[in-house]
Amino acid sequence: MKITPRILKGFRDAQPEQEILRRETVHQLERAFRSHGLVPIDTPVLEYKEVLLGKGGGETDKQVYEFTDNGGREVAMRFDLTVPFARFMAMYSRQLPMPFKRYHIAKVWRGENTQKGRYREFYQCDFDIVGVDTAAADFEILLIILDSLTSIGVKDFTIHISHRGIFNDFLKTLSLEDSLVEVLRAVDKLAKIGEDKTKALLETIVTADQAAQILSYITFRSSDRAEVLQHLSKFVSADSPSVASLSAILDYLNDFGTGLNVVTDLSITRGLDYYTGIVYETFLDNLPSIGSICSGGRYNNLASLYTKEKLPGVGASIGLDRLLAAFDDPALADSLTVGRELRSSDLLIICMDENLTGFYGSIASQTRAKGIKTELYPLKRKLPQQFKYGERFSIPYALIIGSAEREKGVVNLKNLTTFNEYKEISLSQAIEKILQGA
Amino acid sequence: MKITPRILKGFRDAQPEQEILRRETVHQLERAFRSHGLVPIDTPVLEYKEVLLGKGGGETDKQVYEFTDNGGREVAMRFDLTVPFARFMAMYSRQLPMPFKRYHIAKVWRGENTQKGRYREFYQCDFDIVGVDTAAADFEILLIILDSLTSIGVKDFTIHISHRGIFNDFLKTLSLEDSLVEVLRAVDKLAKIGEDKTKALLETIVTADQAAQILSYITFRSSDRAEVLQHLSKFVSADSPSVASLSAILDYLNDFGTGLNVVTDLSITRGLDYYTGIVYETFLDNLPSIGSICSGGRYNNLASLYTKEKLPGVGASIGLDRLLAAFDDPALADSLTVGRELRSSDLLIICMDENLTGFYGSIASQTRAKGIKTELYPLKRKLPQQFKYGERFSIPYALIIGSAEREKGVVNLKNLTTFNEYKEISLSQAIEKILQGA
Repeated sequence: MKITPRILKGFRDAQPEQEILRRETVHQLERAFRSHGLVPIDTPVLEYKEVLLGKGGGETDKQVYEFTDNGGREVAMRFDLTVPFARFMAMYSRQLPMPFKRYHIAKVWRGENTQKGRYREFYQCDFDIVGVDTAAADFEILLIILDSLTSIGVKDFTIHISHRGIFNDFLKTLSLEDSLVEVLRAVDKLAKIGEDKTKALLETIVTADQAAQILSYITFRSSDRAEVLQHLSKFVSADSPSVASLSAILDYLNDFGTGLNVVTDLSITRGLDYYTGIVYETFLDNLPSIGSICSGGRYNNLASLYTKEKLPGVGASIGLDRLLAAFDDPALADSLTVGRELRSSDLLIICMDENLTGFYGSIASQTRAKGIKTELYPLKRKLPQQFKYGERFSIPYALIIGSAEREKGVVNLKNLTTFNEYKEISLSQAIEKILQGA
Repeated sequence: MKITPRILKGFRDAQPEQEILRRETVHQLERAFRSHGLVPIDTPVLEYKEVLLGKGGGETDKQVYEFTDNGGREVAMRFDLTVPFARFMAMYSRQLPMPFKRYHIAKVWRGENTQKGRYREFYQCDFDIVGVDTAAADFEILLIILDSLTSIGVKDFTIHISHRGIFNDFLKTLSLEDSLVEVLRAVDKLAKIGEDKTKALLETIVTADQAAQILSYITFRSSDRAEVLQHLSKFVSADSPSVASLSAILDYLNDFGTGLNVVTDLSITRGLDYYTGIVYETFLDNLPSIGSICSGGRYNNLASLYTKEKLPGVGASIGLDRLLAAFDDPALADSLTVGRELRSSDLLIICMDENLTGFYGSIASQTRAKGIKTELYPLKRKLPQQFKYGERFSIPYALIIGSAEREKGVVNLKNLTTFNEYKEISLSQAIEKILQGA
């Protein structure tokens, strides 16, 4: 009885084309992160359920893959990288240098409803600067977003920032601090449902006058520092430390110069209770509809679940799966340049005679030493069949060497795209032609 | 009530030092694999339990993390990369080019006894050539082992090969084909328990004469093709296709030339029933005690659990965790050269004045553009404290710029190792000094 080979709903296999793209994207992101002095960490996929979900568990419970292991422990698979990072910092903060700058790129699991095109296994790509509460660190995150997205070929994007500290100050002036979470949820819907519906929604929580004021506060967007400060002065005191912090960041931006597109957009609030300072969202100028591709913000107490030690920090998360999906969008062909071509090799060494396998291997060592990705065809077949294999993987060149050529010390090179042939040339000539793209 | 931050027994956090080493090692291995035309795939961590374990489950069940998900499905976490690969090939073999050459580097989970220094979460690093049954493919695996281990700085190692087809032929001449699995298990212990105890163990399964013959067959090791064929001719017919296959591989090796240390070692059998042709184990010449660092072999039916289609293949697996642990062994300092130094950055830009943060950011963009990993210190602190941070991460240089220097258009550079200082030089002079290691 054979077992039907199948995978779980909401899970995916990665075919070579997709996995090459993902790995190259991650590698570029890592180079960018490392160029900013960020270092990688990793944590286990399985943890104690209590550590990930807290004593009572929470709203997310149903989405979490949890079970009792063979040792009777209640365990869960991580559903994000923030909670394990908080646990990590609570355990090791004393032995780590502060500020601690880390990135973590790894899979997480959530048993979400798959109808909306969501997956139950996906990647997160988080980076944070922990142990410091300054506008300079907030600004550094902007630079990291810029360089990391640029490194993977994302060209036209704008980072939208706002400040939750100022928003909280503003709600206080309306005596609405106790309705914070509900107001945040309503405001977060602005982009989706529009001004009128947001106002109507707010009016179910606050008075009509308060709703009007909130709407007037959040429907503001500007890249001009003076304009931003002018708008804010209508709602909150200029003495607010939060206003000073945003003002400093906008100042740094002016001083930094060009290349970093940032707009203050007060409709950005990042629904969650968690953030306390600057918040970030990043949109593709040519494809805003896919939503924010990099979001985050400042929090003042990362590991409060585990320790009394205050660990303020600031960070963001790149929507890797969303971006990888966007690489397929023809509208972005100009904006995204990470190679999407599957080329397993640059050169295929044709098997003319299996007895020459050792010799083919020594030829391949020489071409690889020149940086040419070289593949051996591992059995003798008719030439067209071997060429067909090369075409399937877009391998641009084939090297054809039989016993006669080996004795003469020559090779035949064929360009599998143009069908140009270079007969009875030396191996070093062939290497030169491949490197030149002849 | 705080929750105690802790991790499960048998699981590990990766600190930055370890994670940098692991990621760089994996990246080098990938470059080597790709240079041979291997392509990466990925599969889900969670699969249907039936797909991973078969209808009845098996001996390994107790080690497998399995549970019922919120949708009532019986699921399991993958315990190796071979079974998911077999499932993958059963589903997609028709749309993939043949031969299909893949690698897969990912975590797997087993609830093993942790007392022996084993972990319950660890990496596997597998590569295979599927869809072809030739000595040429068997030989190619040797070249991939050579280049992948060399790429991560492993210098002195020897690949031990044997051939399970010949061993099976030999057991047939002794009419012992029905005792194959038991004999394999006994023979597999030779290196651990020695000749006498292996003989005694064999005598509990077969006659004393048969045990003596088996011992005489397996206690043979040579790098000379003629010697190997001579030894085998005493036990099996020279007409055996398996002997022809091994003979061809040894022929290719002679033709390939130097650089590939391979010895035919008939004690290598790889316990498992699964292999049918060549088998490989790889030992560090200076640290054989850690066991094989790369093992594998040829199998004739990868996906038999799922499909009637025959999928022969050959592959091997690098013991990544074992190797990463070996990197810490001082005995290997000369044999292993992958960078083990944690340097988060090459340059630390000191924060003399937080108001200069935007300017520091623009300086950092210029140094990064020259390939210098550059970190901003994100708050104003006393200089010694900022230098101390740089020392903790072995950052070799610090750039010190206050308002006065900014106005003059100069910078101060300090070498944090030699304490040399270069005062009031231009930024391009500083970049030059850093690149020169001055």
